[in-house]
Amino acid sequence: MNTALDCIPCLVRSALDASRLFTDDPAVHERIVREVLQTTADMDLSIRPPLMAQRIHRRLRELTGNGDPYGPAKVRFNALAAELLPALEAELDAAADPFNMAVRLAIAGNIIDLGPNLHLSEAHIRESLEQALATPLDGDSDAFRREIDAAREILYLADNAGEIYFDRPLLKRLPEGRVTVAVRGLPVLNDATLKDAREAGLHELARLMDNGSDAPGTVIEDCHDAFRAAFESADLLIAKGQGNFETLIGCGRPVWYLFKAKCAVVAREVGKPLNTHLLMREPQG
Amino acid sequence: MNTALDCIPCLVRSALDASRLFTDDPAVHERIVREVLQTTADMDLSIRPPLMAQRIHRRLRELTGNGDPYGPAKVRFNALAAELLPALEAELDAAADPFNMAVRLAIAGNIIDLGPNLHLSEAHIRESLEQALATPLDGDSDAFRREIDAAREILYLADNAGEIYFDRPLLKRLPEGRVTVAVRGLPVLNDATLKDAREAGLHELARLMDNGSDAPGTVIEDCHDAFRAAFESADLLIAKGQGNFETLIGCGRPVWYLFKAKCAVVAREVGKPLNTHLLMREPQG
Repeated sequence: MNTALDCIPCLVRSALDASRLFTDDPAVHERIVREVLQTTADMDLSIRPPLMAQRIHRRLRELTGNGDPYGPAKVRFNALAAELLPALEAELDAAADPFNMAVRLAIAGNIIDLGPNLHLSEAHIRESLEQALATPLDGDSDAFRREIDAAREILYLADNAGEIYFDRPLLKRLPEGRVTVAVRGLPVLNDATLKDAREAGLHELARLMDNGSDAPGTVIEDCHDAFRAAFESADLLIAKGQGNFETLIGCGRPVWYLFKAKCAVVAREVGKPLNTHLLMREPQG
Repeated sequence: MNTALDCIPCLVRSALDASRLFTDDPAVHERIVREVLQTTADMDLSIRPPLMAQRIHRRLRELTGNGDPYGPAKVRFNALAAELLPALEAELDAAADPFNMAVRLAIAGNIIDLGPNLHLSEAHIRESLEQALATPLDGDSDAFRREIDAAREILYLADNAGEIYFDRPLLKRLPEGRVTVAVRGLPVLNDATLKDAREAGLHELARLMDNGSDAPGTVIEDCHDAFRAAFESADLLIAKGQGNFETLIGCGRPVWYLFKAKCAVVAREVGKPLNTHLLMREPQG
């Protein structure tokens, strides 16, 4: 999807917030804000919003030498998710439709995202998960299940650390031996990397790979060959999170998007109210 | 006060929101956003934030030929305030300390500000006024009253349409014949002009003048001579609203600021929690 004018103040705001996490040096904060203003002033609005975020985060790493300021938050979110998961799994196993609930939980986990909200609290995560499981899903989980049953090769594009724990119940219900989980190639925001995925035990449930890219989404032309090959050969793709939606929507591949519409621009794009939990199929030809 | 880095995404956001009120033409929306990005990229941060807002609004008037898109909202807010005032005045007359309550009401009225929130609802205004009157004031209203009693010439710098109705009870309690109320010289945002002040009957309570400027604050060097003379000769100034605070703080004149701290930058500047209702004296030599 294109970058909307409304994305621009949000990108400037996020760049400033992120810069404060990267360093205490006010000169760097000012420099990054001025650079983002300069760049966005002439920006081609047909680029997908996560590409600008990727650029900002690369520049912050370059200016500060800090490779992963979100590391401690990721460890914290993984630990919180590990603590919360067993009770939710028990609830899920006892549910009338465990598959549908696994899908809802996977989407609910998408609340663990420091992109739109750097000051996300644990209390907010706990509350949101509870709410999400009580909220009906916007999407056809039966059609999703039918495509899963027919697929020979499934590529699961994970999103954030912490969130990936809540992908486990859904991954367990996908056909054994046919699933690869892909994560980011380098740390960016609190997006999951191989280290996080292993910590969450995803290697016990699927093959793992990274995509070689540091974009907070899936920018195919930025990914390494092995990932591109997996992306092309999969006959079903499951894309978690808003960043993957923003970068992939319109790609024409058989993608199911599972995410929470966390900003007004994305909500407008999908024609749903803000905060809708979506299970959405990439439009077909 | 200086422009903070945090003001910048907010200025871009406000410019975009305002552009949509000025015109439906998306080319103008994009143009104003790009111009604001370009300008703020090189901006001197020692300028006061309302100066950038003034510049944006001038440019929007120039690009669209629309002189006052806030006019209808101002009429609506004036009408709402006129409807709400009598009951509040009765409450105030029966209060233990009507002067203190008049000060609180004048500050509470400052909620009627489309600067930080273009989508302000009438329900929100009603609720905020109720709350404000129940909330203690942050400031020394006795010291304020002593300075008023000793003053020979008081200049009252009004802020917004609607809000000015809630200045009436305080104006009534200022020494008769010694008060001039000044409003903006041209429409900008929903700031009050002479027309609004007359509609609110302020001419029955004080002399009225405009300041000759279209800044959403008081930028002395931008005001006409008559206002400057009044500003210099007054031995007490009462400045309503955040815009007047942002532009005048540090001026060294005997100003009392009455406003609600509506943004995090101003709250930090005064060292108070967000949304504090402030009665604050300009620091003395």
